[in-house]
Amino acid sequence: MKTILPKGFQASGVASGIKKNGKKDLGLIFSQAPARAAAVFTKNRVKAAPVLLDKERIKRGVCRAIVANSGNANCCTGDQGMRDVRAMAAFVASSLGLSEELVLVSSTGVIGEPMPIDKIEAAVPDLTELLSTDGVLNFARSIMTTDMLPKVVTRQGQLDDQTFIVTGVAKGSGMIRPDMATMLCFICTDAEVAPDLLQNILFAETEQSFNRITIDGDTSTNDMVLIMANGLSNIKIEHQKQHKHFQRILNEVMTTLAKELVKDGEGATKFIEIEVKSAGSDHDAHQIADTVANSSLVKTAFFGEDANWGRIIAAVGRAGVPVEPAMIDIYFDDVMMVKKGLGCGKVAETAVTNILKKDQFSISIDLHMGNCRATVFTCDFSTDYVKINADYRS
Amino acid sequence: MKTILPKGFQASGVASGIKKNGKKDLGLIFSQAPARAAAVFTKNRVKAAPVLLDKERIKRGVCRAIVANSGNANCCTGDQGMRDVRAMAAFVASSLGLSEELVLVSSTGVIGEPMPIDKIEAAVPDLTELLSTDGVLNFARSIMTTDMLPKVVTRQGQLDDQTFIVTGVAKGSGMIRPDMATMLCFICTDAEVAPDLLQNILFAETEQSFNRITIDGDTSTNDMVLIMANGLSNIKIEHQKQHKHFQRILNEVMTTLAKELVKDGEGATKFIEIEVKSAGSDHDAHQIADTVANSSLVKTAFFGEDANWGRIIAAVGRAGVPVEPAMIDIYFDDVMMVKKGLGCGKVAETAVTNILKKDQFSISIDLHMGNCRATVFTCDFSTDYVKINADYRS
Repeated sequence: MKTILPKGFQASGVASGIKKNGKKDLGLIFSQAPARAAAVFTKNRVKAAPVLLDKERIKRGVCRAIVANSGNANCCTGDQGMRDVRAMAAFVASSLGLSEELVLVSSTGVIGEPMPIDKIEAAVPDLTELLSTDGVLNFARSIMTTDMLPKVVTRQGQLDDQTFIVTGVAKGSGMIRPDMATMLCFICTDAEVAPDLLQNILFAETEQSFNRITIDGDTSTNDMVLIMANGLSNIKIEHQKQHKHFQRILNEVMTTLAKELVKDGEGATKFIEIEVKSAGSDHDAHQIADTVANSSLVKTAFFGEDANWGRIIAAVGRAGVPVEPAMIDIYFDDVMMVKKGLGCGKVAETAVTNILKKDQFSISIDLHMGNCRATVFTCDFSTDYVKINADYRS
Repeated sequence: MKTILPKGFQASGVASGIKKNGKKDLGLIFSQAPARAAAVFTKNRVKAAPVLLDKERIKRGVCRAIVANSGNANCCTGDQGMRDVRAMAAFVASSLGLSEELVLVSSTGVIGEPMPIDKIEAAVPDLTELLSTDGVLNFARSIMTTDMLPKVVTRQGQLDDQTFIVTGVAKGSGMIRPDMATMLCFICTDAEVAPDLLQNILFAETEQSFNRITIDGDTSTNDMVLIMANGLSNIKIEHQKQHKHFQRILNEVMTTLAKELVKDGEGATKFIEIEVKSAGSDHDAHQIADTVANSSLVKTAFFGEDANWGRIIAAVGRAGVPVEPAMIDIYFDDVMMVKKGLGCGKVAETAVTNILKKDQFSISIDLHMGNCRATVFTCDFSTDYVKINADYRS
């Protein structure tokens, strides 16, 4: 469906001059009514200033505005960084007539450089002036770094003949690996959800979406997933049935965004689903899927469209969990390439080579050990990934 | 010193036709006298046929010959692979008039393809015919895959006016990561060492050399480090003092080979020493050094000669061990780039940018938390790495 904001939300994005190339780099999301808020933050022990500030402010469970910038991570910036992030929130709060504590801040970009806080101060009046119910794409553009495309997903839910909206905005596309609250994602909804429930659902759905993707195995210092629920749809999420429906809608928004992140991964030319099944435990399944999805050798073979299943089984073997090599089957889409640990020969290889030419395919690894499974989404590893990251700061 | 073999050892290498390009692909090391032998094997749970065979045969602690091939890993080849590896040993044993159990086998190359055992059988007479005390470079060339250079290191030890020799041969240069017995390495010595002592010293020195390097974070199914000690120098390693001297010489050989492997890593243009000091434990220090050394973002920044220390501190933060970001100092060679978690500014950055232009430099990360340290050797991550691995099988 069209990318719209839920009732009572507005957004905007401007070019404040943080980015040298003149592109949009400062964005704002505003809720007309106080919104319940919950967040999941990076598990990296080095945390950016906005993460440190938001972790405190989110404890109150309420939020009116999020100001976000790209081009500078405000990380490893010490006391000055903390002063700058508070100042960013204060500029916005003052311009919108809000209490400072109701404004959250998010930053992404280069680590270790001072924030050009004067540029942000100068841009905030325009930023608030431009707030609009149509502004979500501008906001999405303002938080892009190496992303090629803005990422916005909207879904509509329905309960007792009333509708509510969930809209999520996210950015990638490097320093992305699972098992953390990876990257930036902002979600708005006009449903009403109690803070504890909101936090629980957000955490559960982050595990199932953003924590199931990887681009390069690195984890950012600035990652956060934030949700705001302002209740203006008059739908209250209370009972078990409502709860399930809301969680399903949220899952759709977050999973779709997570997949878009991988498709737009730095230098990515292919989108690959790695499924591990019949594992002894969920942990084992995830550990193996993650190891295969992060292997540089597997990912470069995908880029080369090479049916090099030996690298996949070698990655399975080094994942640090028990496997029985002589029981492993591997499928590329629906073609069996490995049966009981042995290659299936030339006919299978020809079929698999054709599958590898596609933009999107799946690898299924059947361990024949138990009943557990996990899926991780990844991309290939191209020469462009290296070029993008060799030149990132220049 | 010149690359020679210890007393009583001979080696050879030929082109048997396993490699499509006509380069050497089959090698042999032979000891005129029965040699004490010890080995360390891959921890990958998927193990190649020669690893499975050698793990059994090495239990007797004695060995006369090692036959090794490149171009085919003999891994995921099932019962036929086990028959083939036994046949390889049998051809050599028969040609040299040895018992089969005294021949070990090693393979490296593509996983999952059947061994062209007829080609090996046809080449073995030449291989044994060409055995020579000067043959070590030919052997080193015969085990190369994507390596650019053969790797042979010789050191001489002296005890009570008598000398002994330790010579090691190794190959890299992809699927290389630490904490495993990584890659292939064959070491010969004419010292006499008891089997238990030989195994203990080999294990300890593997930890300090090959398990301290990484190229791409992947671990091979075929890795092994093997040592043969034939005692023909008449030097017996018994007392504590002799033991220490022998271990120091072995350490020199293995560390030098390990560094050569990294310098010749796939697509590598730079050799980087990552040192973590003042850590709370050896494990923490190693975990952090390893995480930094394996980070694709850190390695691509090295390739781009970009002083992007933010990626280093972000990798420190995601290593999964406790750190205090505001206490971390980071040096590039002897230039302090980060002090107490903050960048040291433009003058430092200019100096560091010049250091990054060198082929070889060190990163030192001081955590200020304890007394433990660890060093890991790594290389940069270049567009050529991706090209080499996208095209590997074609």
